[in-house]
Amino acid sequence: MSIAAPVSRGALDRKTIERIVREIVLKRGGLRDGEPELVVSISARHCHLTDEHVEILFGPGRTLTPMKDLYQDGFYAAKETVMVVGPRRRMLPEVRVLGPTRPYSQVELAFTDGISLGIDLPVRASGKISGTPGCVLVGPAGVVELKEGVIRAERHVHMNMQHAAFYGVKNGDRMSLRIDSSCAVVYRDLLVRADETSKLEVHLDTDEGNAADLDHATKVELLKQ
Amino acid sequence: MSIAAPVSRGALDRKTIERIVREIVLKRGGLRDGEPELVVSISARHCHLTDEHVEILFGPGRTLTPMKDLYQDGFYAAKETVMVVGPRRRMLPEVRVLGPTRPYSQVELAFTDGISLGIDLPVRASGKISGTPGCVLVGPAGVVELKEGVIRAERHVHMNMQHAAFYGVKNGDRMSLRIDSSCAVVYRDLLVRADETSKLEVHLDTDEGNAADLDHATKVELLKQ
Repeated sequence: MSIAAPVSRGALDRKTIERIVREIVLKRGGLRDGEPELVVSISARHCHLTDEHVEILFGPGRTLTPMKDLYQDGFYAAKETVMVVGPRRRMLPEVRVLGPTRPYSQVELAFTDGISLGIDLPVRASGKISGTPGCVLVGPAGVVELKEGVIRAERHVHMNMQHAAFYGVKNGDRMSLRIDSSCAVVYRDLLVRADETSKLEVHLDTDEGNAADLDHATKVELLKQ
Repeated sequence: MSIAAPVSRGALDRKTIERIVREIVLKRGGLRDGEPELVVSISARHCHLTDEHVEILFGPGRTLTPMKDLYQDGFYAAKETVMVVGPRRRMLPEVRVLGPTRPYSQVELAFTDGISLGIDLPVRASGKISGTPGCVLVGPAGVVELKEGVIRAERHVHMNMQHAAFYGVKNGDRMSLRIDSSCAVVYRDLLVRADETSKLEVHLDTDEGNAADLDHATKVELLKQ
């Protein structure tokens, strides 16, 4: 991952960042032998819902309506959005729901979002929501009070076992992501989430994507640390 | 700057980030001989105004009212705020004015702010505003249309000539800032702004401060690159 890379911008421009999860594909010529293509995605604020909460928020019998497939197979941005209300009645009016549904509901925000809501966000791996702050979700058909589940998602990289072998890492390890741009950054301590089927993809939040000016990145490198 | 550092939190908590420039002072025990104390400040969105624009926005004969001194001597956050209106009539209702006044007016936003306003921000050193986007400023007494001057400030470090000598850098060079936290980052290519009188201080914007969780940093290091 040490060669210059032409940048292929995604179809979605910066204006849509508030409403949908963006995927920035940094395709590269001259991959080393066996080197996988690296995709860096920016997850704007979003939430995951249980089946039960979908029905409360959007109506009895309702299910999520896929609007845009995400890079990982089987995952999608739904047409549905919810209002997220913080402890001091400040709110974010339209937070995108991602599908499919999960066994627990979870809201993933950037610190900038948390500040505007008045929530001091803990940094957690997805699903590790025990003891995290809650919030109120408001949909067109009803309201859900989450007792916990509002987090800043810990930056991470999805990969399969072949990718892990290429980089010499294993599930739970930490890697660094180097981004070359007008606002160059090295993000350290990305959590490696390796399984049998995932595509190689780094997930950053909007603060991280914006701090690094990822939209104008000329090169990205995933590095063992 | 290779030693562990206890963190002394500022008096201002995260909730105030939207309204005022924060200064995160990472005091450290065990400084090396001659090693200066490093201050990392987060500049929330703000603007600088000319005397003429202060009078248009706040009334004839009006001058800025200092509210809080900044770390660099002679600079302050003013009591005055303005509304910043973008090209599609989206707006930020209260953007802090920093003093003293300048020969040009300039609005400094994070990319997250620019996205919400619909302005594609150029990354510029302060004062280099030729050809940058404009905006409309609305104050209690009047309106100013800026033809240019809306930027994302390039991350930078202020220092005096003794600091520059300590680090082995000169004005215009680039350095890196390493931040250890739960969201560890290395910010590269900080512009060195060295003069006779400045205190040693890194300026980041809110995206950068939030991406690195600077509020919970355990150690910061300024590194020659």
